[in-house]
Amino acid sequence: MGGLPPTLRHIVESGTPGASVTVTGWVRTVRVQKRVAFAEVSDGSMLRGVQVTMDDPQMAAALTTGCSVEITGQLVDSPEREQSKEVRATAIRVVGASDPEHYPLQKKRHTLEFLREIGHIRPRSQTIGAVTRLRDRAEAAVHRVLRDSEFVRVHTPALTANDCEGGGETFAVAAGGQPGAAFFDRKVSLTVSGQLHLEVFAGAFKRVYAFNPAFRAEPSQTGRHLSEFWMVEAECAFVDSLPALMDVGEALVRGTTRHLLDTAAPELEFFSAGNERLARLVRRLADPQQYPRISYTEAIDILQRADAAAKFEHKPRWGRALQSEHERHLAAAHFQGPVFVTDYPAETKPFYMLPNADGRTVSCMDLLVPGPCELMGGSLRDHDHARLARRIADLGVEDGSLDWYLDLRRYGTTPHGGFGMGFERFLQMLTGLDSVRDIIPFPRHAGRCQY
Amino acid sequence: MGGLPPTLRHIVESGTPGASVTVTGWVRTVRVQKRVAFAEVSDGSMLRGVQVTMDDPQMAAALTTGCSVEITGQLVDSPEREQSKEVRATAIRVVGASDPEHYPLQKKRHTLEFLREIGHIRPRSQTIGAVTRLRDRAEAAVHRVLRDSEFVRVHTPALTANDCEGGGETFAVAAGGQPGAAFFDRKVSLTVSGQLHLEVFAGAFKRVYAFNPAFRAEPSQTGRHLSEFWMVEAECAFVDSLPALMDVGEALVRGTTRHLLDTAAPELEFFSAGNERLARLVRRLADPQQYPRISYTEAIDILQRADAAAKFEHKPRWGRALQSEHERHLAAAHFQGPVFVTDYPAETKPFYMLPNADGRTVSCMDLLVPGPCELMGGSLRDHDHARLARRIADLGVEDGSLDWYLDLRRYGTTPHGGFGMGFERFLQMLTGLDSVRDIIPFPRHAGRCQY
Repeated sequence: MGGLPPTLRHIVESGTPGASVTVTGWVRTVRVQKRVAFAEVSDGSMLRGVQVTMDDPQMAAALTTGCSVEITGQLVDSPEREQSKEVRATAIRVVGASDPEHYPLQKKRHTLEFLREIGHIRPRSQTIGAVTRLRDRAEAAVHRVLRDSEFVRVHTPALTANDCEGGGETFAVAAGGQPGAAFFDRKVSLTVSGQLHLEVFAGAFKRVYAFNPAFRAEPSQTGRHLSEFWMVEAECAFVDSLPALMDVGEALVRGTTRHLLDTAAPELEFFSAGNERLARLVRRLADPQQYPRISYTEAIDILQRADAAAKFEHKPRWGRALQSEHERHLAAAHFQGPVFVTDYPAETKPFYMLPNADGRTVSCMDLLVPGPCELMGGSLRDHDHARLARRIADLGVEDGSLDWYLDLRRYGTTPHGGFGMGFERFLQMLTGLDSVRDIIPFPRHAGRCQY
Repeated sequence: MGGLPPTLRHIVESGTPGASVTVTGWVRTVRVQKRVAFAEVSDGSMLRGVQVTMDDPQMAAALTTGCSVEITGQLVDSPEREQSKEVRATAIRVVGASDPEHYPLQKKRHTLEFLREIGHIRPRSQTIGAVTRLRDRAEAAVHRVLRDSEFVRVHTPALTANDCEGGGETFAVAAGGQPGAAFFDRKVSLTVSGQLHLEVFAGAFKRVYAFNPAFRAEPSQTGRHLSEFWMVEAECAFVDSLPALMDVGEALVRGTTRHLLDTAAPELEFFSAGNERLARLVRRLADPQQYPRISYTEAIDILQRADAAAKFEHKPRWGRALQSEHERHLAAAHFQGPVFVTDYPAETKPFYMLPNADGRTVSCMDLLVPGPCELMGGSLRDHDHARLARRIADLGVEDGSLDWYLDLRRYGTTPHGGFGMGFERFLQMLTGLDSVRDIIPFPRHAGRCQY
């Protein structure tokens, strides 16, 4: 794509010292001294910009923070940074000015909360820049890990007539002022999960995945929830063991982290600088040693023993859902790393999960990690037509809206299972950031949908 | 991911003749003869399934079309097909039965219209199977082409407070029975394009792209329209020439097609079998020779000269939008291949496009192709703050909802541009299929949102 100006990364990595170059980007900082001036020019292709040296300080006269520039000069080895290069400018052109009185992203360090208020400018900040590149590389890594294992990508729909998790916090869709039913032939909402649709394709392609936005009208204001978020979901046919399914989930997390250590090392180091706990977590995720796997029952035991010291707000008791404080204790305090928790009580989980022989629990797994707590949730799916049909009838679904889902168990059913991983939570874990609102380009949550 | 059963493709491509293998999949056909029986078992990993030979016809007794099986046997060279292999079965287990009385996907050839009625079963059909693999490979190719050119992927939002194209056919979003404004702090709709949001990131990363679902409450029932579809959008900063932008769009189409010739040759051949016109189009798209580029004014000339023979329903006249019949004539009849049409009259195009010096036209381009007609649309964007502010005021937007968009022109603006390509249309072009409803896994359109 020869018509595009090269990225700074390309210039620095493949330019030879002495070469004549043209640098385009945005000015991050300007320093004017008596006999020389410096500017850092960035274009998002690297953590730090390129240093431009001006032998005549007058050349910097028109440069302000945030302005866009085209600078011609000579590429030279940087005396300051090893294995880096800088540009000695011969000509400077301001492409687009930036009024220093009003430009909201000044040199000083801004809080992430402030940066959220200038969501259309914050991509130029170093932190959001690093998040964006890490996110980009992470997406590529997810695709690569799954494709290398012959998973087929399926574009499950955002608009759906089926609500996977059953009831709850969905967004309704309307057209032209009319409810959706007037446009479509039924009530339509935004998907909370592509799982049911993915099961259709698992029943034809064996290994499938989706990497799509999902939507929850979640009213709670936490750093872990968004109204719109991206999710990686995988579904595998001919799988009848939870350990095999955990192997797949674990391979995804480990493989993606490893690719990132190759393709986004500067970004990972930027976030873990001075945070040895985070650096250790990243190494642990990439390590070949299997992540610990405990049952829900064992988890309750651990939590009850810990309660004397931890003083949980919700007392851990068998039969109740695990709360965030419990998940946090297991991942951050007890295991200090990733841990799978399996076989939860049936009544805490959705209808489609495969019942265990004990009659009390289902074949499911959650992957808990320090930071976002629940990173991944999955299960074997009930593949028995008669049992699932009874379960659906018990739920009171009598409108036939799940007949197609039952059909998958009528015609060549197989033991199968899958999981979903929140993509923002995955990145939250790797960056150690407090809020997923800083992980997604344009966060949407209760009370906020700007831009 | 060792716990998963291997795909048939893996077994056929890397298994050695004589090896003992276990094959899992779904039975497509069964043929029972006097001394031998045959079954074709498929798992979506290849165009055709694997042939299983049973030396005892009794072994096939439980096999019916659509049932899922686990078959153990010996891999042998196929006497029928060159460079292929088949399996001589020693043991057969039906994993999930399929009642031959009711299974809707029988051996006989079904119409695509009928397959749409059984959307949860159709992925097992040969045509939808081929579409799904082609779609999967095409997505991978798009990412690869853009990443190889250092584009950064941005997840632009589906929920938006800004409606890019201005007015028109958007879906509104509501939460918990309340309009969206009660959940968010404003009116929220589903995005029709990620362009405006992508411009934010182009102003920090130079080259960015999105590959997301987009939504239009389009009432028309054509083979080219969906309510939910996927779009590849690219945006480039520091680009001030339409030819450079067309180079990028052309490189995307050519590069993706070339990758598909490497990674999905059997699928491309399946669709172009007996259709030399389609085969020629695919070759043309991959060919290095530049796609023709004409101005809208030249296009009108061509159409007016053709009108005597073509007898257009809408008479081509300068100043009017091109109709489908016009686009079809240009791409399918006149150029018989891809053609860019540039510099349309300003009044036929949205507010953000860069005006040309003539005062009548804007710097835009559409890529027309045989089949879906309009494959891609793009433009240079107006990067001048004062002019764009006037244009927005002229439109009557006075609520400040585009202030952030104007801000991009206040702080380090650059000449920039981008385009969007309908992903289903791209695949419609390559498959020659009449309707995009057969290209997307679960089609949504006026009157229909099943599953």
